[in-house]
Amino acid sequence: MSDNSFGRLLRVTTFGESHGPAIGCVIDGLPPGIAIAPEDFAHDLARRATGKTRHTSQRREADEVEILSGVYEGVSTGAPVALLVRNTDARSKDYANIAAQFRPGHADYTYWHKYGIRDPRGGGRSSARETTMRVAAGVIAKKWLAQRGVSVRACVSQVADVRPRGFDWSAVEDNPFFWPDAAQVPELEAFMDALRKSGDSAGARVHVQALGVPPGWGEPVYGKLDAEIAAAMMSINAVKGVEIGAGFASVAQKGSEHRDLMAPEGFASNHAGGILGGISSGQAIEVSVAFKPTSSLRLPGATLDTTGAAVEVVTTGRHDPCVGLRAPPICEAMLALVLMDHALRHRAQCGDVGPVHPRVP
Amino acid sequence: MSDNSFGRLLRVTTFGESHGPAIGCVIDGLPPGIAIAPEDFAHDLARRATGKTRHTSQRREADEVEILSGVYEGVSTGAPVALLVRNTDARSKDYANIAAQFRPGHADYTYWHKYGIRDPRGGGRSSARETTMRVAAGVIAKKWLAQRGVSVRACVSQVADVRPRGFDWSAVEDNPFFWPDAAQVPELEAFMDALRKSGDSAGARVHVQALGVPPGWGEPVYGKLDAEIAAAMMSINAVKGVEIGAGFASVAQKGSEHRDLMAPEGFASNHAGGILGGISSGQAIEVSVAFKPTSSLRLPGATLDTTGAAVEVVTTGRHDPCVGLRAPPICEAMLALVLMDHALRHRAQCGDVGPVHPRVP
Amino acid sequence: MSDNSFGRLLRVTTFGESHGPAIGCVIDGLPPGIAIAPEDFAHDLARRATGKTRHTSQRREADEVEILSGVYEGVSTGAPVALLVRNTDARSKDYANIAAQFRPGHADYTYWHKYGIRDPRGGGRSSARETTMRVAAGVIAKKWLAQRGVSVRACVSQVADVRPRGFDWSAVEDNPFFWPDAAQVPELEAFMDALRKSGDSAGARVHVQALGVPPGWGEPVYGKLDAEIAAAMMSINAVKGVEIGAGFASVAQKGSEHRDLMAPEGFASNHAGGILGGISSGQAIEVSVAFKPTSSLRLPGATLDTTGAAVEVVTTGRHDPCVGLRAPPICEAMLALVLMDHALRHRAQCGDVGPVHPRVP
Amino acid sequence: MSDNSFGRLLRVTTFGESHGPAIGCVIDGLPPGIAIAPEDFAHDLARRATGKTRHTSQRREADEVEILSGVYEGVSTGAPVALLVRNTDARSKDYANIAAQFRPGHADYTYWHKYGIRDPRGGGRSSARETTMRVAAGVIAKKWLAQRGVSVRACVSQVADVRPRGFDWSAVEDNPFFWPDAAQVPELEAFMDALRKSGDSAGARVHVQALGVPPGWGEPVYGKLDAEIAAAMMSINAVKGVEIGAGFASVAQKGSEHRDLMAPEGFASNHAGGILGGISSGQAIEVSVAFKPTSSLRLPGATLDTTGAAVEVVTTGRHDPCVGLRAPPICEAMLALVLMDHALRHRAQCGDVGPVHPRVP
Repeated sequence: MSDNSFGRLLRVTTFGESHGPAIGCVIDGLPPGIAIAPEDFAHDLARRATGKTRHTSQRREADEVEILSGVYEGVSTGAPVALLVRNTDARSKDYANIAAQFRPGHADYTYWHKYGIRDPRGGGRSSARETTMRVAAGVIAKKWLAQRGVSVRACVSQVADVRPRGFDWSAVEDNPFFWPDAAQVPELEAFMDALRKSGDSAGARVHVQALGVPPGWGEPVYGKLDAEIAAAMMSINAVKGVEIGAGFASVAQKGSEHRDLMAPEGFASNHAGGILGGISSGQAIEVSVAFKPTSSLRLPGATLDTTGAAVEVVTTGRHDPCVGLRAPPICEAMLALVLMDHALRHRAQCGDVGPVHPRVP
Repeated sequence: MSDNSFGRLLRVTTFGESHGPAIGCVIDGLPPGIAIAPEDFAHDLARRATGKTRHTSQRREADEVEILSGVYEGVSTGAPVALLVRNTDARSKDYANIAAQFRPGHADYTYWHKYGIRDPRGGGRSSARETTMRVAAGVIAKKWLAQRGVSVRACVSQVADVRPRGFDWSAVEDNPFFWPDAAQVPELEAFMDALRKSGDSAGARVHVQALGVPPGWGEPVYGKLDAEIAAAMMSINAVKGVEIGAGFASVAQKGSEHRDLMAPEGFASNHAGGILGGISSGQAIEVSVAFKPTSSLRLPGATLDTTGAAVEVVTTGRHDPCVGLRAPPICEAMLALVLMDHALRHRAQCGDVGPVHPRVP
Repeated sequence: MSDNSFGRLLRVTTFGESHGPAIGCVIDGLPPGIAIAPEDFAHDLARRATGKTRHTSQRREADEVEILSGVYEGVSTGAPVALLVRNTDARSKDYANIAAQFRPGHADYTYWHKYGIRDPRGGGRSSARETTMRVAAGVIAKKWLAQRGVSVRACVSQVADVRPRGFDWSAVEDNPFFWPDAAQVPELEAFMDALRKSGDSAGARVHVQALGVPPGWGEPVYGKLDAEIAAAMMSINAVKGVEIGAGFASVAQKGSEHRDLMAPEGFASNHAGGILGGISSGQAIEVSVAFKPTSSLRLPGATLDTTGAAVEVVTTGRHDPCVGLRAPPICEAMLALVLMDHALRHRAQCGDVGPVHPRVP
Repeated sequence: MSDNSFGRLLRVTTFGESHGPAIGCVIDGLPPGIAIAPEDFAHDLARRATGKTRHTSQRREADEVEILSGVYEGVSTGAPVALLVRNTDARSKDYANIAAQFRPGHADYTYWHKYGIRDPRGGGRSSARETTMRVAAGVIAKKWLAQRGVSVRACVSQVADVRPRGFDWSAVEDNPFFWPDAAQVPELEAFMDALRKSGDSAGARVHVQALGVPPGWGEPVYGKLDAEIAAAMMSINAVKGVEIGAGFASVAQKGSEHRDLMAPEGFASNHAGGILGGISSGQAIEVSVAFKPTSSLRLPGATLDTTGAAVEVVTTGRHDPCVGLRAPPICEAMLALVLMDHALRHRAQCGDVGPVHPRVP
């Protein structure tokens, strides 16, 4: 077993290594009748892509998506949709010197222990390059959800110890940091320039939100909507924490403060983050995700080689000084995939994908 | 679909409602040859049980486990092990008055929207009573892991805004709060007494740890060890957040601080929490879990009834003022189940459950 | 892994051994709103039960079903339904002498090799006693299907080399052999009496049919409706072959004979057995299943003991001289479970459980 | 849901349509360390390929396999192995005239009812072209099994009503019919020539065998080795029946004849076909599979168009007059995939992939 698939009824299987010939995915369980075209993927892949600004890795990937199957005359047929992206700017030589060393904070050491063999080129399978296909699959899920009035969006809500002073969703897509306060952007640019020069890296927090989810999606006990969102987010490279709604702040809340009272006009608050007992309540779904600082640094670090000897490693490849800055489209994609999967699961058991009872506005 | 099962190769399916005739589980995929006796379950079930002190719900359950199958002459045979616990102190009348109302912060509203029908007795399937069977299943996983040198343990590391001043694992089992600083126990008792009298409730944070896990358990990408730990913890009632290692604190760390350097003597730190690229590194696995304050309060709260009309609800049943205080055995069980499942998955693909290569001490 | 579960969206997990305290099952994924009462199970369990006539095993089981969960006020809630049947007439002493011997044609030898341990009492987990729970779960599936106009039925269509001369479905439930020709029943009784006296056993063929299945259930490629029916039937104890429609006879057919022509009035024939490309066509689903003769015989047979030494074994317990005679309710149950599972899977992906297009009558 | 994946721990997902840009597969769960090269696939793909002789479809596919992932320096890394085959000789125009008609005996009618949309080019996803990827995946499984002393092989054991007079496995690969009696080949050639001229088609029976399987592979109850073999075979296009060991002949056997007696020298017979209680016994695994005659005929046939009107259809594309003649490599691949999956499942639960106890020779 080696789980490269995600989802139960909407099942995404990804494959490919950072510096192999290609990456790709197979999306199984898609309802028939969804319009899918190669150009649909460009927008979100560009949002995630490296090489756009000086603040991300300088690797430049065209990321052109080829649709290999499952679409006939522009529409999904119910057969699996396979997507392929060729790797075009893979400089394996950057990694030659680290093939016999375990980079600290990377999966080198653990892959080697697990498999006894390791593809060292760009991190191989453990590279965040894999998330390209999550974003591509997410594009289709977003389309399907949009037809049901459900949308997802994400922003960066913390970089190192910088937090937004204001909060305006409309600002998010207008700066390279997915930052919700336009006035702070120069400050962030200065921070990132200094960080890059220092050779060090920084962590980030991403906030993800789904709007329009009807009450009733999610399954009690082990298939809770929040449990599967947590797994989805934690499966993204570099993630170290996930919160739903009030998250860790709920530890210091009183019950009388945390519980969201209800009135005919709606809920009075949303500390639950839109999920009660693992099932959506109809409120916005609110998720917060912690990204650790990139482990690939130009600063030398003590480590071991494969013989067990002490060595010093310096990572000279092209890396992101703050991986979290490219993460919002990935988090959106994962949330969209979880939601669509649960919509189908709900439909299987309960026969619809929307509310059947009177509901709180 | 309605996922009441957990795990891939070690598969636990639970059933039963808070006030139904019984709760139980079926554990499938257990290796043959594990010694299992009815009395094995008593210790952990007592650690989790209500009614022991004035600080938890006064519901008293004997929680006697009957082994229905899969054990012959005291040893597992490879067939599914079914465990049954009869519900003996279920006062349904406590809940009669809330059958037509949605308690704020509970799953009442979402179950009703999902299924159009709801078992209101004690929360039905959404009750934390279900976690009894997680603890029972976890007992077997702990036994199997112990034979391989792996152990799990948990403590409460925050109640409301109270944090441990000292930290001593040996103190944890000697007080009713699973608290790692014995000197603080009187302070916590006073806090809990005041809380109970106020009719309000408090949140808590639980720290869970696994020791002795060899490097190599866990699967890259969607089956990451940390992703499945996150799902396991978030599937526990009242959980709102999960952290691995440095967790949300890693957002404010520099990469040079976060990455754990390695030397022949071992790792220099453990910000990763024992997992790199989704695979265990051989270090201690460190998990932190946020529990929201109990939503069942004696304080009245505004809500709706099933006709959509505004009503005020008061929960008069027997409840825990701080559910997190009973959670450490549940968190341990979930971590043990995830680890054993991954040990079997690793063995399937790679042929062993321990390290095969020279490893960092 | 040890797969004691069946189905994808309607998921049945069974547990229990022939001579253990109980057998049972957990049915997960049931839609809410299905009326379920303990007495629903009596009819089909009696049809399957031993001890009714001299032609089956004389073990007498009350087979009373206790509903442990998932039903509130007589109706399914969407939570898992657990069913329990206590074993009451389990004479373990019958099996004491064979604990160290491998009965030929039984699973004794293979279980021992797989697990290194074996519950010898009545075959333990490998006993056909397990099929009781399949029948119980099937009762619920039949109910749900009946509300959608789908029914299943089965008969015995061959015993040894005796085949029905006439064929009348209405005769099937009026004789102890599920035989479709009433006039042949005395002949079969004489055959069975002679067989029982000889100490030998006979094979049988069971024909199973589903009526009213709409076109569109089933999934292409690996989830084909016929592939899952084949697995379902082959998973029943003693089954050695499965045919869909014309089955093995299609080998000697010409294509012009086999392909079922279509006209506005309907299909001209049904060699396909109601399934094309793995998907139901709207015609009757026709399945034929081969049951081997019981391996438990009073006639002595050469075998080995667990030390590898040659021994002679005689099986003196209570056994069926022709297990196939009790199989029709089991085959019906398995077909009903497969169909309901596929109905839910179809609804998940395509949004309905009936035909949406004009269809052949 | 739409199950285009096969296997539990060794998981093969296929994609692609007959006349789309490509077909491919992703193989997940492969142990690390298996040598895999593009040229490994040529032999079995050629055995399965069309266009080699006048007796099969004249479509000529190069079937060159590109390895997209999961292999580093010639060896599997534990990451998913994706294989891609471009479609090069896809004449869609052959099918233009049947886009609005349902070919009798094909999946046209059922796909249209299921999905409301259908890719008519060469049968789209329902084409046997998909089996190319099964054969490719099977090549890797065969390699892994061979290292453990397990081999699989298959022959055609019946065409229409022609059965082998002699039986010699060494003859099978030396004639275009996978026929085990070399002396009969001219007779078969004459039969096939006449069949092709007639415009009609014929059915076939394939016999598949595995040698060297140790006792202990397979799982009781729903994961029985024979149940999963039955599903695997029935999932191949055109299959209508599956037998294990004596199969349907066991219906007319006495128990004293069917049960395979054991002696220290070994089993006295193999009516069980190498599987008892769903678990391998160490004997040869024997499977027989019925293939219906091809439904694509030059002979006109009555059917409907998508408006429900009666039409006459003639299939003028390039088709096999006896699809079973190309099936042996496909059946071998499926058996190899099931066996390797079960070997891994056995290793997960029981810790090895070979016998641990003294065994019958």
